[in-house]
Amino acid sequence: MKESHVNMNINDAKGTAVVLTDNLYKTKSAKTAHGLVRGSTRFKVIGIVDAPTAGSDAGDTLDGSYRDIPTYFSIEQALERNPLPDYAVIGVATPGGILPKGLIKEVKYCLSKGVAVVNGLHDLLSNHEEIVHLAKAHNTAVYDIRKPKNYADNNFWSPNIYDLTTPVVAVMGTDCAVGKRTTCGLLHQLCNDAGIKAEMIYTGQTGWMQGYKYGFILDSTLNDFVSGELCHAVLSAVANEQPDIVLMEGQASLRNPSGPCGAEYLVSANAKKVILVHEEKDFYHDEPSWGKIKSLESEITLIEAYDAEVIGICLNTCELNEIQAKQKVETYKKKYNLPVVAPLIEGVTGLLPVIKNIL
Amino acid sequence: MKESHVNMNINDAKGTAVVLTDNLYKTKSAKTAHGLVRGSTRFKVIGIVDAPTAGSDAGDTLDGSYRDIPTYFSIEQALERNPLPDYAVIGVATPGGILPKGLIKEVKYCLSKGVAVVNGLHDLLSNHEEIVHLAKAHNTAVYDIRKPKNYADNNFWSPNIYDLTTPVVAVMGTDCAVGKRTTCGLLHQLCNDAGIKAEMIYTGQTGWMQGYKYGFILDSTLNDFVSGELCHAVLSAVANEQPDIVLMEGQASLRNPSGPCGAEYLVSANAKKVILVHEEKDFYHDEPSWGKIKSLESEITLIEAYDAEVIGICLNTCELNEIQAKQKVETYKKKYNLPVVAPLIEGVTGLLPVIKNIL
Repeated sequence: MKESHVNMNINDAKGTAVVLTDNLYKTKSAKTAHGLVRGSTRFKVIGIVDAPTAGSDAGDTLDGSYRDIPTYFSIEQALERNPLPDYAVIGVATPGGILPKGLIKEVKYCLSKGVAVVNGLHDLLSNHEEIVHLAKAHNTAVYDIRKPKNYADNNFWSPNIYDLTTPVVAVMGTDCAVGKRTTCGLLHQLCNDAGIKAEMIYTGQTGWMQGYKYGFILDSTLNDFVSGELCHAVLSAVANEQPDIVLMEGQASLRNPSGPCGAEYLVSANAKKVILVHEEKDFYHDEPSWGKIKSLESEITLIEAYDAEVIGICLNTCELNEIQAKQKVETYKKKYNLPVVAPLIEGVTGLLPVIKNIL
Repeated sequence: MKESHVNMNINDAKGTAVVLTDNLYKTKSAKTAHGLVRGSTRFKVIGIVDAPTAGSDAGDTLDGSYRDIPTYFSIEQALERNPLPDYAVIGVATPGGILPKGLIKEVKYCLSKGVAVVNGLHDLLSNHEEIVHLAKAHNTAVYDIRKPKNYADNNFWSPNIYDLTTPVVAVMGTDCAVGKRTTCGLLHQLCNDAGIKAEMIYTGQTGWMQGYKYGFILDSTLNDFVSGELCHAVLSAVANEQPDIVLMEGQASLRNPSGPCGAEYLVSANAKKVILVHEEKDFYHDEPSWGKIKSLESEITLIEAYDAEVIGICLNTCELNEIQAKQKVETYKKKYNLPVVAPLIEGVTGLLPVIKNIL
């Protein structure tokens, strides 16, 4: 029996889920849906709602790997099943973080069927009176993942981070949406498969949704507490799990104009090693008006100016075929004299030696 | 007649004020009180409450310049005057941003006398039931400057920043509390006195309290909106005031571990010129456990890695006498081949040529 219907303790959410995409599954806006399809220990995804790709397998659409996750034309169609899923998860980012009308309608439909809704937009469901009313009426709940914490529940930075002997690696990128979280997840898996106990620190809503235990949602944290929350996540993971290595999911990029991020990892979490995810493209956010992406060389130089070292490069080759991707990897290896992998075609196994090297 | 007693529109606050310091006036924790003593167009300071320096002139205690601002032993003593001030302003930062017991008592006393209270701590007065009750009972108000905006009232970053032709200068520092805001204010005054129309973008509570028109409180902004709010402040200042130059108040420092800050200025606000405030000291936050402050050379290199240029250095010489300070300035001029000034002994006039040079 649920005692409260809004602002539920988000960490209680776990179960089967249908994912809402506002018809954007094939775009980078659906990063959260993609992450859930790739794998989650928190939610077992039983279907995706996305009219443009309805009828296909969501894994196949994403990266060519069948995952037995059907895509439905509408939420009504998705919920014509028995038993109902435990949750409907909003799996897209929207312009300005606002809940668009189409999603509001779908959210209401889910609640009316008694299905709880998980929301990672800045626009909180708990601020929509009608939605809260519906959740209560149907004895279900809404979970606002991006609800900012009360200031007193945040942590300040602590110099204890300097006492860590566990290697802390930042998985950073040269732009938003180039695959930092996916790469970090692959590295986490790679380490654990190889008998290296790794903890991944999530820093976005998708990481939380995928079920990683330590982390916080960086972009909905009051700026004063970003370093403290990151530091606290790393220290907690090390204290509780005694991992061999900590991998931190990066956000944005050091010079993405809409929200530069990265110094927190290198300075506040004291990461001395960086794995850099890069996609060859012209503009930040693929938007000419945002300006040209700076060169990979200059990104490495900037990271070095923060006293950290790039130990490997992951190339996002989503725009290339396999032959082109492999050629690109060879070119980069020669140019940068660093281990280079293309996770989409070969995984990240090629980075295992360099990881073993820092343990 | 006030309609609401809590969460008043903060921009309505303007008038006479007494400043509460929790007995910390002589420490760096009282930066806000110091800023108000140095000058504000929003609040006319009629007194400081600080038992350790009671009886002295607050200006004289701060920097040896008499300013006709008496310091009182207690809030009771400060309010034994007619007419009462319009506001009591909390002028200190406290550990964790929490309202300590002593200040709570003083706040309550002020409200009981009908004096409105302005609070810049993370701990919001409007969350203290008893305080809200008192404000209502005495027909006065509380103003929480650090209350985070609703997400929808925040601005996202806009590429329009690239179209600006007005020079944008970031006044950054090599640590917290080295004089960035004071220096920025002095440069603002210097420009305007020289017939150069300057706008200063405030980024902290003290800048707001001093009456600067454009800006936001960076550390209580959700991280996703920091770049957008900064960009919006600059674009608004330029659109409305058509200044010859925009000066931005920096926060923390690029490598301060408790909250690195600076990329937002260089990347999101596209500042290509930096005036760097530096104090020769060993440790961040004067705290050995926080780690050694990196060299000024490496700070300049890091700024250059962000494609910006340091055009002048301001030395904080608070620990030196006048002769030592002047010698230090000469040493720095030779070493860095840049204009160098020591604002505390000679102001910032020495930077006028380099400012004129970028107009």
